[in-house]
Amino acid sequence: MSVSVHPALPEMTGNYLFQQIGKQAVDWEAAHPGERMISFGIGDVTQPLAPVVAEALRIAAAEMATHRHRRGYGPAAGYDFLRQAIANEYAGYDEIISPEEITVTHGAKEAISDILTLFDPRTPVWICDPGYPAYREIAQSAGFSVHSIPRTEENNFLPLPGDISEPGIVFLCSPDNPTGAAFSLAAWQAWVDFARENGSILIADAAYAAYLAEDALPRSVFAASGARECAIEIGSFSKSDGFTGLRCGWIVLPEGLRASGVALAPCWRRRLACRSNGVGYPVQRAAEAALSPTGKRQGAAALSVYRRCSELLSRHFIEANISFWGGKNAPYLWAKCPSGTDSEILARRLLEERGVVVTPGEGFGALGRGYLRIAAFAGEKDTAEAIRRMSGIL
Amino acid sequence: MSVSVHPALPEMTGNYLFQQIGKQAVDWEAAHPGERMISFGIGDVTQPLAPVVAEALRIAAAEMATHRHRRGYGPAAGYDFLRQAIANEYAGYDEIISPEEITVTHGAKEAISDILTLFDPRTPVWICDPGYPAYREIAQSAGFSVHSIPRTEENNFLPLPGDISEPGIVFLCSPDNPTGAAFSLAAWQAWVDFARENGSILIADAAYAAYLAEDALPRSVFAASGARECAIEIGSFSKSDGFTGLRCGWIVLPEGLRASGVALAPCWRRRLACRSNGVGYPVQRAAEAALSPTGKRQGAAALSVYRRCSELLSRHFIEANISFWGGKNAPYLWAKCPSGTDSEILARRLLEERGVVVTPGEGFGALGRGYLRIAAFAGEKDTAEAIRRMSGIL
Repeated sequence: MSVSVHPALPEMTGNYLFQQIGKQAVDWEAAHPGERMISFGIGDVTQPLAPVVAEALRIAAAEMATHRHRRGYGPAAGYDFLRQAIANEYAGYDEIISPEEITVTHGAKEAISDILTLFDPRTPVWICDPGYPAYREIAQSAGFSVHSIPRTEENNFLPLPGDISEPGIVFLCSPDNPTGAAFSLAAWQAWVDFARENGSILIADAAYAAYLAEDALPRSVFAASGARECAIEIGSFSKSDGFTGLRCGWIVLPEGLRASGVALAPCWRRRLACRSNGVGYPVQRAAEAALSPTGKRQGAAALSVYRRCSELLSRHFIEANISFWGGKNAPYLWAKCPSGTDSEILARRLLEERGVVVTPGEGFGALGRGYLRIAAFAGEKDTAEAIRRMSGIL
Repeated sequence: MSVSVHPALPEMTGNYLFQQIGKQAVDWEAAHPGERMISFGIGDVTQPLAPVVAEALRIAAAEMATHRHRRGYGPAAGYDFLRQAIANEYAGYDEIISPEEITVTHGAKEAISDILTLFDPRTPVWICDPGYPAYREIAQSAGFSVHSIPRTEENNFLPLPGDISEPGIVFLCSPDNPTGAAFSLAAWQAWVDFARENGSILIADAAYAAYLAEDALPRSVFAASGARECAIEIGSFSKSDGFTGLRCGWIVLPEGLRASGVALAPCWRRRLACRSNGVGYPVQRAAEAALSPTGKRQGAAALSVYRRCSELLSRHFIEANISFWGGKNAPYLWAKCPSGTDSEILARRLLEERGVVVTPGEGFGALGRGYLRIAAFAGEKDTAEAIRRMSGIL
């Protein structure tokens, strides 16, 4: 045997969608000096860190410069203060989550990649089409075979387990990127019942839970009874608290969870201890501050900006007679291209003729063709301006 | 196919060495209230962050709280300012390294785990015995077969390529954890020549490069001619700048590097883009500050503390007639147990009878039996006190 590249990697061709969009945007700006592009493209937040979060970072930085309060290697799974604060967020759900079941991570994307290392790459992976492209990319680059679950107008972009033909690892994002659809408790319960019955493991991506506006919609798969026996949840501070540039998320791995009879939590602890020294102390203090009452109040103010942007866009699409989904419980609107126009051509026209970036739906899977994802992070002023610019095209 | 745990994981038994030591130390403290333990056990630094580094963190935290200066998702491979600053550290070596060849990571351990995902798990992995246990644990947990290269008194703990029987991924740490041995340029050149000849890839762990005291010893594998064709280097701010609790390291992956004809850099970029959103902005600014002239001056002051501890320990071992290696170009001393005493028993006696933690050599591999690793991070006062305590045992 010689030294060989992982067989999955050379087969991955083309560029990751958001890199392509980034390049198109850069090209546009180079070609239009003095003009300002408005981006509904990449799902990155635009509001600054909450003051109390920045203050926690500042204090931790000062601590690290003292003999008395500095911290070296922290626990691989995170400091107890943050694990406890995260576990508290799950209080009141049907399933109880303890701090020991929380692993603090460098973000949700990193968590998804890490959690997959727990599984045999021969395990089928099921992802929604359309869906967050990182699921497919991460799974494929680790050698897993990926199968699709259709999110369509017919199922209101809320698929039920009937679409799965064999047990596997099932990625489910709610509220969803890109469609903005959110599972009801009954829908989560159907998935949990199915997974327990056929031996699947659900990986619930709750990165956008903070955007849920309807109180009846559960923020976690652990609202469903029995979820501890079949579900892992990924959480993130990125979209709820503006941590995209700070990097912090978490994994909930219930203690008794098993795959084909093997307990996952001990394997996870073992893998984690040998491959990670945890997330930096200042970042964990910042995350703790985001979950404090002041942090939540300040964080909600930032979210209300995105919510108003979603409302402006929703109103525009209604007035323009454009069919759309989402925007209510998620920062994403999923708009149908008018009268069968091609989504990639439409997105390119919006950029080239109007300087507005949106994402063509096929970037999220083949069934996304004919739709556009509009990420409502541009701020109110820019959103209003972009709506004026789009007039006549979208 | 059902959902299955990765076949490598359930086979991993026992506890990671440093967790065991941590538990023994906790037990000792519980049993000895009011007494103070001194640890030469885990290789964690003890000096605070340099003032200029803490200040960079503080400024970045303040920036993140403003609309104007906040940063969202950064480049997956790191910000240009830090990649350039790291590349500058390689100026003057035989092989030129460009900023585009640097990936900023959350630390060295994380980098080792990530870089292995590039390779087919059927590729043999070669590690030194004794050696940093994470190499073996990470490789095994990802399904690789691990083979040993003996580090022994006979080769002065500096193995040469003759010990490798088939091409593979070869982990080489210099200056070394745990033996403190450091490769000369000639030794690195021999490894590079061998790897180019037989198609191996060297993964050079340079985490302790800042501790090299002898000017003639190279700080990087890229001092050896041709290393760009066979080597990847892992760097870290942990031990040089006290970042163990902050988390930042880097990978150097030369652009033209190939494994069985396949270019690695494009595969790496692709894998990185889909699984990582990079290291947080404040941490990257802190790392940049550590590489500034002021950062280097302040960092050197912390290193001189550890160096003086190494000197105290070296003098003690000479006076006590204990054979030892290292301590000059690394913060680790590798001491031979007197007259054939068992290393695990000796380490336990030192803890139980004297309240001093050292690491038994077999924790780093079977050939480490009969030796002890002493990590010189305890500070001068504690080091002097521990030397008094150890009297008669070590």
